[in-house]
Parts: sequence; structure tokens; C-alpha cells
Amino acid sequence: MDELRIGIVGLGNMGGTYCGQFSAGEYKRCRLTAICDSDAQKLEAANAGDAKRFSDAREMFESGLIDAVIIATPHYAHTTLGIMALEKGLHTLVDKPISVHKADCERLIAAHTDSSVVFAAMFNQRTDPRYIKLKELIDSGELGKINRINWIITDWFRTQQYYSSGGWRATWAGEGGGVLLNQCPHQLDLWQWLFGMPAKVRAFCGVGRYHEIEVEDDVTAYLEYADGSNGVFITTTGEAPGTNRLEIAAEKGRVIIEGDDLQWLRNEVPTSEWSKTCQGGFQKPAQWEITIPAKGRGPQHVGIIRNFIEAVLDGKPLIAPAEEGIHSVELANGMIHSADIGQTVNFPLDGATYEAALKKKIETSTFVKKVDESAGKAADMSSTY
Amino acid sequence: MDELRIGIVGLGNMGGTYCGQFSAGEYKRCRLTAICDSDAQKLEAANAGDAKRFSDAREMFESGLIDAVIIATPHYAHTTLGIMALEKGLHTLVDKPISVHKADCERLIAAHTDSSVVFAAMFNQRTDPRYIKLKELIDSGELGKINRINWIITDWFRTQQYYSSGGWRATWAGEGGGVLLNQCPHQLDLWQWLFGMPAKVRAFCGVGRYHEIEVEDDVTAYLEYADGSNGVFITTTGEAPGTNRLEIAAEKGRVIIEGDDLQWLRNEVPTSEWSKTCQGGFQKPAQWEITIPAKGRGPQHVGIIRNFIEAVLDGKPLIAPAEEGIHSVELANGMIHSADIGQTVNFPLDGATYEAALKKKIETSTFVKKVDESAGKAADMSSTY
Repeated sequence: MDELRIGIVGLGNMGGTYCGQFSAGEYKRCRLTAICDSDAQKLEAANAGDAKRFSDAREMFESGLIDAVIIATPHYAHTTLGIMALEKGLHTLVDKPISVHKADCERLIAAHTDSSVVFAAMFNQRTDPRYIKLKELIDSGELGKINRINWIITDWFRTQQYYSSGGWRATWAGEGGGVLLNQCPHQLDLWQWLFGMPAKVRAFCGVGRYHEIEVEDDVTAYLEYADGSNGVFITTTGEAPGTNRLEIAAEKGRVIIEGDDLQWLRNEVPTSEWSKTCQGGFQKPAQWEITIPAKGRGPQHVGIIRNFIEAVLDGKPLIAPAEEGIHSVELANGMIHSADIGQTVNFPLDGATYEAALKKKIETSTFVKKVDESAGKAADMSSTY
Repeated sequence: MDELRIGIVGLGNMGGTYCGQFSAGEYKRCRLTAICDSDAQKLEAANAGDAKRFSDAREMFESGLIDAVIIATPHYAHTTLGIMALEKGLHTLVDKPISVHKADCERLIAAHTDSSVVFAAMFNQRTDPRYIKLKELIDSGELGKINRINWIITDWFRTQQYYSSGGWRATWAGEGGGVLLNQCPHQLDLWQWLFGMPAKVRAFCGVGRYHEIEVEDDVTAYLEYADGSNGVFITTTGEAPGTNRLEIAAEKGRVIIEGDDLQWLRNEVPTSEWSKTCQGGFQKPAQWEITIPAKGRGPQHVGIIRNFIEAVLDGKPLIAPAEEGIHSVELANGMIHSADIGQTVNFPLDGATYEAALKKKIETSTFVKKVDESAGKAADMSSTY
């Protein structure tokens, strides 16, 4: 194949952005040949050149006009449309989260039976040079064993108007959760990508603490690994200005990612070895102050779409295989479930139990959402990751 | 009274330091007239001029040579000696923690029946200008309601040799706990002093995670207030270099104390008001970047002892009344108990239940501590707070 024919389904904020990127010539060796949305106005307004318009995804998938599809619909449809696309043999790039709950992730992943079909997920923050560098330091053993992780990711501020801008937003039926399902899939994916999956979680969620919504907008989660390593993940959409600070305490010192650079106070001797051999009581190992410059945030969404195209055309390895997307969903589900039952939840999570609990929430929801359609325009998503 | 006659009981690291301060003339309108330790060598070696030496505290208390006493013994004796001193009508300054567990705190405080007797505690970090400034900002309402607190206080690194330097160290019988009872009373006191007591705690403790000890050396605690405000307190003696970073998310912005200054990103409009009225979805309130200089760490121990002397001679209000010392002990006890039972613990804590649990640990302890007496000298405490 010399040129990849791509379709986009879902022309909301992200789908619309991708259309614009294709029209602006961001992507080579490919063409945007079809777009799809159930909203005729969005379909009409899309910046997509002469791409054929579809109001029905199945028709687009079966049109013979596309070899690959980008799924940028609301979350629940990632599963149904993803399965449909994979069953048609379409190379598929699904936005985050890959599904809303673990059982749906498993269904979606199970549909990927043909290894010659490329199946990727939009974890664009994996292209951020700060996290790439951190992963190199971890995987190469430079940092030694990691003892503690602390991620305060509270700079996801959203106004009440944001939540009022769509009836599906921040509802169990519409998104399957709040900040953990909408804003945090990125950080939860990075967490498991960098540190692996923990053995268990105990989380505390504030449901509608800062906004009139029925889902969590404030979360503190304690995560523990089988070897005793542990960490805390804190997030909210209710704080301004908020913080995005990732701290890692490892045998070879402390790494902090906050702002542009990666700051590493490097121990000349690993902490535990020093503790056992030092003849003083208080002295710390000698340190190096290291700054690893990592200006900018990398190619982000554009990088993931280019990688997807290269994976199809050149067999290049994916930055974010969709299969790996189950972990961030499992982390989010585990946190919500732990808070719901007031207990520690072990991983792997039982997907069926969680799905049943979520369905019950949807069925028994009495929350009446105030929707302000005029707010749609105000909620400009162009700067969202 | 024109001149206060002071005795010191306990000539370990801190007691010895206080002696030196008296000898160096740090304190006016007072005289160090008596010192006491059961260790004859320490008594002999003390830098205490012509102060009379006692090997028995009761004899010193009844000698008629002192009006006031500083109790700087190992923790458990704070209670017994504190009660004895108060019953003799001596003005009493007790080192932190005021007792090891809540029930002992109550017994000690109950002995303070005469309001003309001054009873203070060594919470020297209350003299740190950074925390004083923060308290002013909170108490004056400048910050508005506090929504979240995060204190990472992991720069308490201690080697194995530190723990080996004394058989009592880091044992249930000798200290009643680990990092929470020995190193953290300061931060736990500042926490309750600044933010008040939470409604409940769920904590996770690593017992002997980094050292060969029978008590906790690694703690993560989630604290929640009745109004939904919450916070995380993280500490350990096993990390190098470690962190000391206090972050407060309030209605009027975010304050961070790390290093010398107090950094405040101040919202022009309180977050919740902005969230309700802003017509956009993502915009945060306008901010001011404020740096409040607070160089240095204040007079610390010297400041507390001077304040104690002025409280007796001039009726000056205490910086740290000993009665307030029960709260940091209750927080420490609550964290340990929560980790032990694997459940959330509500405040106020039941002191009798906790005391019974602690006694059982002491009675059933099978831990054999390796003590290296030669390590005593190596563990120079001169730089400890």
C-alpha cells in the first residue's frame, strides 16, 4: 500500500481537530477519504475537503473508501465501533479511554484477531519527551528500584459550564465516570507504562464535590505494588491553578517532573546500600544535581497519528498499542470501585463485577443534569490534551 | 520572680544541647541550677557549669533548687516525669511528643490543674517563619476555605546504624512507634495547628520496610475533614534525598512551602465562585504570582525555651501549650491504628483501645534488636530538629 485512505468517526472537539490536521497537510502518504457523524451540522461544517460524508458509521466502514479509521466518538462507542471496525479488517486508532470499563476493553481487544490489522490508541502523552526520558531512565536501570511515586495532577480545572455543555458529560450513562475517565486516562496510562500495574488500590472519591455532577471530580488513590513499593495519585477538576507534579523516589535518587525539565537528584550510592553501610546516623549519600532538558511537549496527537500511519505502511512498532489501553481503564475502574465499597481493591479487577456495578448506577441514577446548550461554544476544547 | 531557676532532666542529644545553650548565655533572667540523668557519665560530662547533679528526677524536683524543668528524656518518661513535675508545682517544658499515646497524653494533661503553672511543649517548628506566615494567611481568611493539603515529608533519612545506636530506638516498648512518633511529631503538630483536626484517617504503614526495626518507617495517610476537605501526609526515614513539600489548595489559590520561601499563586476570584460564573469551560481565574520571603528557620528550640521563660516571668502567651500536644499524638496513633486494622479510623480516637493495642504489641514483641553501642557516637544528633 502506498497511500492510506483514512476515515474519521466522531466530529466533536478531537475529531474536528484531526480533520483540520489532515486538511493542513500534517500527514503524508495518506488521504482523509471519509468522515462520519450523526450530527448533520457537524458533518457539514467539518474541515475535511472532499472526504465523503456519512451519518452512519457502518456505512462508512463498508463503503470500500477507507483502509483505516480514527474513532473519536464519546467513550462508550469506542467499544462498539472499535469492534465493528476491527471485524471489517480496518486498521483502527481509538481515542482514549479505549472503553469505559474493563469488560468492554476485553470485548474490544478480543475483536483484534488479525495481527496484520493495526490497532492503536490515542495516548498522545507518550510522545512527551519528559516521560520518554523518564521511561528510558527506568527501563535502563539507571534509577534502580522505585520505592515511591507521587503524582499530583490537579490542573484539570473545569467550570460548571463545561459540564453543562453536554447532557452526556460527567454522567454514568454518558461517560462511565468523571475525571478518571475523561481527563486522567493519559496519566493513568503513563503510570502503568512507566511503573507497571500495582497489586492493589485504596481510593477516596469526591462525587460532585466541586460541580453539580453525579460522578467523581476529586480523587486520592493509594496504590501498592507486590514488592511494597507504593504511590499516591491525586486528581481533581475543581482546583485552580492546580498542579502537575510527578515525583519518583528510587534507589538512585529522586526524580521530579514539573514544568519543562526532568530534575534528578542522583545518589552516588543506592539508598538501601548506603543505609546498611554508612557509619553515621543521618548522613545521606553524596548527590549529583542533574537537569535533563526536555523542552516542549513533543508531537502529541499528531505524533500518534503519524505513528499509526507508519505502522500500517511500514510495519513500524506502535507507540501505544490499543491492547495496553486496558490498564488505564482498569486503574480508573479500580479507584472508583474502591471508593464505592470503602475497601482496598486488588488487581486484576473482576471486570464482570465492575460492569454490573456500573450498570446498576446507570439504571438507578436519579440525577437530573442541567444542560445549557449555549455553553457548547463557550467550552472551547482546542487546548485540551 | 526576677530570675527563673531551671532544671533539665534527660541529658541525651537534646538535653545536652539545651545545657550548652544555657552555658552559652542564650537565656536571660534564668539560671540552670540543676540537671538530672541516670547515666553518671552523661551527668559528669554535661556542659552545665555549677548546676547541681542529680541521678534521680524526684530528688531534683523536690530539692527546692528549681522553679521550672525541661523534660528531655526518652518519650515514655515524658508522661511520668511530666505528671510528677506538675504535681510539685514546677513550670514544665516537655519535649515532643508529649506522650507516646493518647491515654497517656490525657493523664499528663490532667495533672496540669494549676493554671498559674506554665506547661509548654517543644514544638520548635512553630517558630519557623514560613509556617507562621502560612498560619496568618489561613487564620485571617486570606486563603479562603482550604480544599486539599499534601505534605510530603520524606527528608528524615536515617541509616540502619542510627537505629542500632540504642536498644530503645524504634521499638514499641522504647518509643511507641517509628517515624510518626520520633521524627514527625513536628509536622503532625503543624498540621493540626494550621488546619485543625480531621474527622478521620486511613493510613498505610510499612513496618521495617527500609530498616531492621519492628515499627513503621514508611507511611502514607489520607486524612478527611467533616466538610469534605482532604489531604495526604507521606513520610519515611528510608528515602534519600527525600522531600519536604507542603502544598495547600484553597479557594484563593495554591500555596507551596518548599525550600526557603512561601509561594502563592493567588486567584483573583475564589475557585468555586469562578467555576459557577465563568462562561467558558476551561479558563481559570486570573492569578497573581506571590512570593513571601521567609528566609531562615526562626529561633527554633531557643525560641521555645525563651518563650517558656517569658511565659513564667511575664505571663506571655505560650507558642505551644502542652495541651495542644495531644493532637499530634492522636494523629500518629490514628495512622498506626488504621494501618494495623486495615480500616479508616475516626477522630476522636479511643485512647483506651489504642493503649491496649500498643501494650499487646509490646508484650508480644519477638523482635530482637541488634544494638551496636559504638554507633552512639556516630549518630551525631546536633543537626536534628
